[in-house]
Amino acid sequence: MGATETLARYGATATAAHIPEDILHEGKRCFINFLAVALYASRDPSLDILLEVYRREGGGRHASIAGVGPRTTLQNAALANGYLGHLEDYDDTHFPTVIHPSSPTLPAALAVGEQMGASGRDALVASILGMEICCRIGMAVHPYHYDAGWHITGTCGVFGSAIAAGRLLGLDTPAMIRAMGIAGTQASGVREVFGSMTKPFHPGRSAQSGVLAALLAQGGFSSSPTILEGRRGFGAVLSTESHWDRATDGLGERWELQKNGLKPYACGVVIHPLIDAMIGLRSKPGVSAETVASISARVHPLVLELVDRPNPQVGLEGKFSYQHSMAVGLIDGAAFPAQYTDDRVHDPAVEALRDRIDATIDSEMAEDAAEVTLTLKGGISYRVVIANATGAPENPLTDAQLEEKFRVLTGDVLPKARVERLLNLLWHLDQVTHMGEVLALARPRRRSIRQ
Amino acid sequence: MGATETLARYGATATAAHIPEDILHEGKRCFINFLAVALYASRDPSLDILLEVYRREGGGRHASIAGVGPRTTLQNAALANGYLGHLEDYDDTHFPTVIHPSSPTLPAALAVGEQMGASGRDALVASILGMEICCRIGMAVHPYHYDAGWHITGTCGVFGSAIAAGRLLGLDTPAMIRAMGIAGTQASGVREVFGSMTKPFHPGRSAQSGVLAALLAQGGFSSSPTILEGRRGFGAVLSTESHWDRATDGLGERWELQKNGLKPYACGVVIHPLIDAMIGLRSKPGVSAETVASISARVHPLVLELVDRPNPQVGLEGKFSYQHSMAVGLIDGAAFPAQYTDDRVHDPAVEALRDRIDATIDSEMAEDAAEVTLTLKGGISYRVVIANATGAPENPLTDAQLEEKFRVLTGDVLPKARVERLLNLLWHLDQVTHMGEVLALARPRRRSIRQ
Repeated sequence: MGATETLARYGATATAAHIPEDILHEGKRCFINFLAVALYASRDPSLDILLEVYRREGGGRHASIAGVGPRTTLQNAALANGYLGHLEDYDDTHFPTVIHPSSPTLPAALAVGEQMGASGRDALVASILGMEICCRIGMAVHPYHYDAGWHITGTCGVFGSAIAAGRLLGLDTPAMIRAMGIAGTQASGVREVFGSMTKPFHPGRSAQSGVLAALLAQGGFSSSPTILEGRRGFGAVLSTESHWDRATDGLGERWELQKNGLKPYACGVVIHPLIDAMIGLRSKPGVSAETVASISARVHPLVLELVDRPNPQVGLEGKFSYQHSMAVGLIDGAAFPAQYTDDRVHDPAVEALRDRIDATIDSEMAEDAAEVTLTLKGGISYRVVIANATGAPENPLTDAQLEEKFRVLTGDVLPKARVERLLNLLWHLDQVTHMGEVLALARPRRRSIRQ
Repeated sequence: MGATETLARYGATATAAHIPEDILHEGKRCFINFLAVALYASRDPSLDILLEVYRREGGGRHASIAGVGPRTTLQNAALANGYLGHLEDYDDTHFPTVIHPSSPTLPAALAVGEQMGASGRDALVASILGMEICCRIGMAVHPYHYDAGWHITGTCGVFGSAIAAGRLLGLDTPAMIRAMGIAGTQASGVREVFGSMTKPFHPGRSAQSGVLAALLAQGGFSSSPTILEGRRGFGAVLSTESHWDRATDGLGERWELQKNGLKPYACGVVIHPLIDAMIGLRSKPGVSAETVASISARVHPLVLELVDRPNPQVGLEGKFSYQHSMAVGLIDGAAFPAQYTDDRVHDPAVEALRDRIDATIDSEMAEDAAEVTLTLKGGISYRVVIANATGAPENPLTDAQLEEKFRVLTGDVLPKARVERLLNLLWHLDQVTHMGEVLALARPRRRSIRQ
């Protein structure tokens, strides 16, 4: 049996009983994290460009977009939610492949689940299977595929979406094989567009492609049964090497989702251990922005290459400044989007602290590690060593930290009571009887612009 | 100026006055050929799978699908028409690259043109520029790109569609560059799915991707300005080599569309010179199916490799049988879809003639050439040499042959008077004031299934 058939069969037939408790829990965490970042991103003006296309297009009000009042079609909702999930670069990351599995996959499960009135348990299982298969396909072609210039979230994402949508549509194995064929030949997204709106468009388009593939497969549309491993298939054409045993070995026994991490901080991951260190240091006796004489860090070489910006002038630049991130880490104890506004980078206290921070390269240091020494004006020094930054698989975001992230990111989008109800529902997703309940909470009642 | 900017600027600013008369005429021929094959294909049951997805989805009735009563959204119409254009493998072919430029490009111009009420002249210019740029991008990456496993019509097609749609939307050069970026990163379609419905899905999806790209670019969506030539762009990621001067040199002076051919026969191109020969022989004195003793052909090696089927059992097999194709060529003087039905392959006269046909390889023979010797029972022999099959750029389908193809293919889909009005309108496309007039004629008034 080839990889396509093996994975399609698994996606079509594995049940909740086959999924370990910790993976089911991880799936809920993905939903919470995804909706936190998508709801936050829904305030971005770029979403209006998509919504205007949808408004002119019309169509059934079948599926919700996070943070948007009116519903839209399955395909449009999938695209918009995939876009929102990745827009802030704040979604989950499968560490071995740098795939962001939630952004292309969950929108498919949300759209199809909402329209069909699927249970939360079914949506959860469909999403877990979709994300797992997406990451496994990534493992088969990584690192060759990404190194060749592909945005792996856009390409492998079509499979996550097709599996999630196909599963909720009740596709049997032959239909799921067809769905993978139709989805896989739509795999696309090159890294050239990084830095533009077209980057988060990739998981959006993947989500849509997978939904369309599943719908067509359901109708009997034919495709190749060997889209992954075939001579002119995904592996051969989109990668210089592919190892399909890495995708199929231990299916149902070991889980790639265990290597999926949720980001605590709204900036590039190379800065994360440094923020961890600052949050650790702020509770030491006598430490405050005013009492600090100097802060010096030993860092992985990428820090100075990518994020050495002592004087950021706008909020977005702050996300690429280790100095700013460390300063707000000490002052605010956080690095949420609120720490990366234009106002925050010009705050005099933050500016003054930034000037006292520097870093030197330690070529022995791991990418998610750092060592920071803080010296008080009185001469006392504290040293903190971070071995694995928060959010890495070895040091996952705690459920409490994830809840805080959810509350902070959704606080300006939904009323406080709604935030708590939604959070509670997501922690109990496997007991939700109709996915529409979840989505109804994620749509604001009144929005001046987008009603 | 890079290739992306050069081509986008040309697509946004060239006018009808910059396009030679013979290319404007070729553009009209592409419309006639495209609508002939799309209308014919609209009777295929696989279209119902797409239409059922559309029906459930709903949406504005803005754009027509060839042969379908109700209109649908721009994106859906573009996808369906691109699918229909390529479904029968009977569309145009840019010989140097084997791109079928009409199928991904014309649906974009038809959809946007219909909704906006564009003039026929504007739709014609937009389509010519789209197809030309699509083929030129193909030239830059051919043959490396196709050899790597890409279906070049699906991949390069997104640019044809984006240019055609963007042009009709009135995008300026910066917006057209964005449209190319958004379209180019959606380029997809692998050859693994050949032989299934997902192959014609490729130009359909390309058409849709280009329309979406143009709509988003119009709204200000940002993308990369170097999607073609960039370090992680289309050429670098989807091809082992790319030569962008081949895409940009002589823009507006020499035309790739001059190398675009329209197929006279509804079968694989390697059989075409043999059918030409039979049609030439049937007018010789004394020649009929009954009087023939034997027919022997000297052919390119691919003929025996690909299409040696002495006894086809179903119509589709007839398309891959040189014996059947030559027999109907002599008896019917044609090789339209009507010559490839199940009934026709079992016709006793056709079977009897097939048995008297054989071919031998001549390794010196060109792929679009053949030599056929026909011997009558009385002993008289005729020999015909075909140097370039009809439909090759060196021996184009005549306007009269194209009209016959149009009439034959649309005859069962539209009433006879409508066929003639539509054909007349397409020959005068540059004088049509509103593209809706053209599309209205391509929608049947009464269709039992698809109203």
